[in-house]
Amino acid sequence: MSFNSFGNLLKLTTFGESHGQAIGGIIDGFPAGVKIDLAAIQNELDRRKPGQSKIVTQRKEPDTVEFLSGIFEGKSTGTAIGFIIKNTNQKSKDYNHNTNVYRPSHADYTYDQKYGLRDYRGGGRSSARETANWVVAGALAKQLISSIKINAFTSSVGEIFMEKPYQNVDFSKTESNIVRCPDEESANKMIAKIKEIRKAGDTIGGTITCVAQNMPIGLGEPIFKKLHAELGKAMLSINAVKGFEFGSGFCGAKMRGSEHNDIFNEDGSTTSNLSGGIQGGISNGMDVYFRVAFKPVATIMSAQQTINSKNEVTEITGKGRHDPCVVPRAVPIVEAMTALVLADFYLLNKTRKI
Amino acid sequence: MSFNSFGNLLKLTTFGESHGQAIGGIIDGFPAGVKIDLAAIQNELDRRKPGQSKIVTQRKEPDTVEFLSGIFEGKSTGTAIGFIIKNTNQKSKDYNHNTNVYRPSHADYTYDQKYGLRDYRGGGRSSARETANWVVAGALAKQLISSIKINAFTSSVGEIFMEKPYQNVDFSKTESNIVRCPDEESANKMIAKIKEIRKAGDTIGGTITCVAQNMPIGLGEPIFKKLHAELGKAMLSINAVKGFEFGSGFCGAKMRGSEHNDIFNEDGSTTSNLSGGIQGGISNGMDVYFRVAFKPVATIMSAQQTINSKNEVTEITGKGRHDPCVVPRAVPIVEAMTALVLADFYLLNKTRKI
Amino acid sequence: MSFNSFGNLLKLTTFGESHGQAIGGIIDGFPAGVKIDLAAIQNELDRRKPGQSKIVTQRKEPDTVEFLSGIFEGKSTGTAIGFIIKNTNQKSKDYNHNTNVYRPSHADYTYDQKYGLRDYRGGGRSSARETANWVVAGALAKQLISSIKINAFTSSVGEIFMEKPYQNVDFSKTESNIVRCPDEESANKMIAKIKEIRKAGDTIGGTITCVAQNMPIGLGEPIFKKLHAELGKAMLSINAVKGFEFGSGFCGAKMRGSEHNDIFNEDGSTTSNLSGGIQGGISNGMDVYFRVAFKPVATIMSAQQTINSKNEVTEITGKGRHDPCVVPRAVPIVEAMTALVLADFYLLNKTRKI
Amino acid sequence: MSFNSFGNLLKLTTFGESHGQAIGGIIDGFPAGVKIDLAAIQNELDRRKPGQSKIVTQRKEPDTVEFLSGIFEGKSTGTAIGFIIKNTNQKSKDYNHNTNVYRPSHADYTYDQKYGLRDYRGGGRSSARETANWVVAGALAKQLISSIKINAFTSSVGEIFMEKPYQNVDFSKTESNIVRCPDEESANKMIAKIKEIRKAGDTIGGTITCVAQNMPIGLGEPIFKKLHAELGKAMLSINAVKGFEFGSGFCGAKMRGSEHNDIFNEDGSTTSNLSGGIQGGISNGMDVYFRVAFKPVATIMSAQQTINSKNEVTEITGKGRHDPCVVPRAVPIVEAMTALVLADFYLLNKTRKI
Repeated sequence: MSFNSFGNLLKLTTFGESHGQAIGGIIDGFPAGVKIDLAAIQNELDRRKPGQSKIVTQRKEPDTVEFLSGIFEGKSTGTAIGFIIKNTNQKSKDYNHNTNVYRPSHADYTYDQKYGLRDYRGGGRSSARETANWVVAGALAKQLISSIKINAFTSSVGEIFMEKPYQNVDFSKTESNIVRCPDEESANKMIAKIKEIRKAGDTIGGTITCVAQNMPIGLGEPIFKKLHAELGKAMLSINAVKGFEFGSGFCGAKMRGSEHNDIFNEDGSTTSNLSGGIQGGISNGMDVYFRVAFKPVATIMSAQQTINSKNEVTEITGKGRHDPCVVPRAVPIVEAMTALVLADFYLLNKTRKI
Repeated sequence: MSFNSFGNLLKLTTFGESHGQAIGGIIDGFPAGVKIDLAAIQNELDRRKPGQSKIVTQRKEPDTVEFLSGIFEGKSTGTAIGFIIKNTNQKSKDYNHNTNVYRPSHADYTYDQKYGLRDYRGGGRSSARETANWVVAGALAKQLISSIKINAFTSSVGEIFMEKPYQNVDFSKTESNIVRCPDEESANKMIAKIKEIRKAGDTIGGTITCVAQNMPIGLGEPIFKKLHAELGKAMLSINAVKGFEFGSGFCGAKMRGSEHNDIFNEDGSTTSNLSGGIQGGISNGMDVYFRVAFKPVATIMSAQQTINSKNEVTEITGKGRHDPCVVPRAVPIVEAMTALVLADFYLLNKTRKI
Repeated sequence: MSFNSFGNLLKLTTFGESHGQAIGGIIDGFPAGVKIDLAAIQNELDRRKPGQSKIVTQRKEPDTVEFLSGIFEGKSTGTAIGFIIKNTNQKSKDYNHNTNVYRPSHADYTYDQKYGLRDYRGGGRSSARETANWVVAGALAKQLISSIKINAFTSSVGEIFMEKPYQNVDFSKTESNIVRCPDEESANKMIAKIKEIRKAGDTIGGTITCVAQNMPIGLGEPIFKKLHAELGKAMLSINAVKGFEFGSGFCGAKMRGSEHNDIFNEDGSTTSNLSGGIQGGISNGMDVYFRVAFKPVATIMSAQQTINSKNEVTEITGKGRHDPCVVPRAVPIVEAMTALVLADFYLLNKTRKI
Repeated sequence: MSFNSFGNLLKLTTFGESHGQAIGGIIDGFPAGVKIDLAAIQNELDRRKPGQSKIVTQRKEPDTVEFLSGIFEGKSTGTAIGFIIKNTNQKSKDYNHNTNVYRPSHADYTYDQKYGLRDYRGGGRSSARETANWVVAGALAKQLISSIKINAFTSSVGEIFMEKPYQNVDFSKTESNIVRCPDEESANKMIAKIKEIRKAGDTIGGTITCVAQNMPIGLGEPIFKKLHAELGKAMLSINAVKGFEFGSGFCGAKMRGSEHNDIFNEDGSTTSNLSGGIQGGISNGMDVYFRVAFKPVATIMSAQQTINSKNEVTEITGKGRHDPCVVPRAVPIVEAMTALVLADFYLLNKTRKI
């Protein structure tokens, strides 16, 4: 077991604090012989990076990944892939006011209680900067399972939902707007909402939907490695996530069996897909899709009452450069974690039948 | 890694098909010196067993656990705890009609595709009978962390929701009715609904809410062992589960930061608890609570179109004795998996600080 | 991680005390579709069982394995394989004198110190009876990698060594004598020695050599899953083992590089094989061979000074039915653990290259 | 599971090729609050580094460790400790002749066969340079379990053995000579032998003995986490190791039980210690000691026949700067791996009893 690793055969282990010298990770179990497209990896990082648009944090971090091992003459060698991303634009001063003061709904208090000390600069290990490591690993995983098409998108911001089913939108439009919603009308409303929220010094939550298409049949293992359970764990590991549902999800809990069952076509596909492409924890070849709920960012620009490490009541106002809504930048993170899970199960599945 | 194990330091590994001779498991990492109350374990199994009321399956299985090792003179010895539960009331004939026919929204098709063969009697390994193993392990875990109070209950059946917040109900009432909802009025409506559904030969979904009180601070590990991510994985491993949310959950995704933040009291507790008792993946001492969505059982008593293993279109009608709603019997399963997660993190936390 | 599991993809988890109701285990990760020869498994158990000859313990235990899951209509299903072996001939009274007295060079003292209590009947969890579980799992593993030929044999008893190199003996002779040495002359000397030792109420150590032939190239993983490191761990897990060497072993430590290097033939084979079939932790297709040292059994039939749990000096004399030399019965255990390691790496290797 | 990780609760994961930009690792599970002495860590690295004396390789590499996370204001924070060691003195040209030619008794051939390609510069991932990572992690582990005294030393070079028992030497003398043997007379003979071997363009094997004193009772877990099995695996993971024995080792296999048993003193200590401080896989408080066999380095300075990747016979002569005997530089590596194992079990043991 380990605290900083994700995956089974394909395993990512990470390190790094937001204001240390660098963050990074080691990807273990990546098979030899995969042609690696470094530009595609950097491109995924760029989708996640701060400062990319007006509705996200204005920090400027180039987030350049440097691979230190495991890739030779353009191909994976089968050995551990080590990488780092240097931290270049830390303004630790922005966080001096946090040294002893616990930000509400942050991890400051729990870290201090658990470990007896913490790196308070920029959230330290609890910072979502960590997810840059995940995007690197996910981008590699995508190249391993390139036949599977993984598309995540912003499906709601606050009360604004993209009402169209995902089958009716064009995923190639997701990157055409800064909120990453493939439906232009919804996107415009979402962007306007985030701008309004930012002006108010406030933040807002939202949801991301992710769809994996062209799925092989047989990924996932019954009992304690169910495909959806691993996807759920992956999503719930992302900072600010409060919920996960796949297929019919919470709506399914209101339905009757006669409505909910997916009837087979002759070729093994199903007429409906309330199962979300997974039956008994194993992919059935239909689209795998799920929805992830993100809470509003806890750092707001207005004063809130709080306490310090001496349990004295005090007040805190957010400084620094924070996201008014985490969802647009989380879209590539959701895709990355999905790719890691699917690539891991793809490898595992090579061993499950003689 | 393993496919049939759950947990880190406290690890449950299981085996068993619904129509084999027995199911069972091995509990590893359970510390020595815990006084074991065997009657309390059997009591948890009885809460899960079939045939316990009119709104669940009428199969009669005593589900008696036999411990084979790891307990000596009434105490845990620190070695592996092995146990079996004999299968006594299998009616494999009930399933003969399933040999080659794939039941819609079951795991028949995916098992066959993945493994090339399957034990088709009663769902084989995909049967929820497996969860009896989990209840045994969870009952032991409860005895290890007896100061934490874990209470799950039925919070909705179909469209019928218990509207009261959990703080306003008395958990000791949960066992006073057969649907396991601590609010009597809601319970009666739910029971009536399930009876109606059963008469119609149909099934219905629902949700379970679980609350862990008297939580120690510091359980959970940031990054890839977040307390809520492990809880989510645990819940998503339960048969028929489609969604998981903790604290504010999907509602939180509609909120603003200024509404959502939990403000600290002087003693480190918080005035609200939208965080669900977890910040940065670590428990903060407030109640941990979450909600789990169960789809309607796939086996219904009316005819559905389907295919067989030769991809020929055919028809299937549920036989055997099935639950019209899985939720009442799933309450102890949710509690058991919660106990396993919390006990595991309780042990892990002994090693995280010198 | 777990305390009672062995292996990576192919994983054995076990439970059981020598005087409980049964011992048993769960084999996880065994692929679907393997035809299972149950008689061959029982045959391996019979090679290990007590009472099989005059030079081993005279306890009579049938050691019959019962499979409870994971095998259906003669084939593995890909799900967990659960099994038990009932304990039928325990004479717990034989051990009453051990309740509070620590047997020299046994695990009584360390268990008590570590766990604060122990099952003192027959050694409890520390009994070599546990290895019957390993033989079951190893016998299954052999069927998975049936093209690899694994042969272990007794290579020394006390000061009596089989001097011939393994290439000069016929492995089919190993089972033709009760000490399991394929060289008849050495075997006779060894048998005479063990009989003499038993008459003296004493015990004696010995070594086992194991050879795996017809090895595929590429098994083993560099760094922390080296083939020989896993084999070493497997062997050192067997009760009474004090040492492990492969290829040139400790002799190699006296040699020069110019003597020690294995020169390549044109086909990639090597003229000598001091490497023991493994280079850089990976099999090179030559025979894998290694040697395992077993100490003399600690239970002797003469009086020894010792202490009890109150730290009082007392005396103990072995009772019960014990092996004068553990080596003959350990031959199938060595083979079983070798098979588990090789089968595990065989599965892993399916995932290491695209 | 993972291929590049070692340990259970305290887990080291590494990456790096000898001629990449850097090697490095991540230490997971290190508890919070340990005061970190960075100079002591660098000192261990200096003991391992090339170029430190006339009897080791003359490559000059400073091997400076840079910690990137997990240490804050002089203390461990409980989060992942990431570090790198930059490669500064690679002469890849030295290895151009190896591109397609397989060095005898190296890993070139097996890597190529297994992965289909390899980083041929300086051995790539198979280089013992990797062990610098282990020394960093081991140095941290030593600081976690500082009460345990771990001393390794060169106990033989070729046929020259230090004859004195370890109890009769002064471990503080180990660092007083370049071969790291605490007995001056033996040390001088060993140094002379290595110089002679180097002049001859040859290499030679040797053994290292390691002793852990002031051991707590109770480290190690029966069945599949036996203390000596983990130590054995750790040692067999070190490049060039061919054998491992603890306590009486292979000599014990020649002995009788009446000679071999360690008789208890009243305080639980034993009069002899042929058990090597471990009974039933658990430390008993006596010294833990073991011996590790290293083969001669495969790279020699004279011509050897070999083949290339096209299976053509060719010849190879070692170039570059290699160790004539690996043992002196392996002493800190043996200590580091010992420290990792003991620290891991120290943490695990905190969870094994209530």
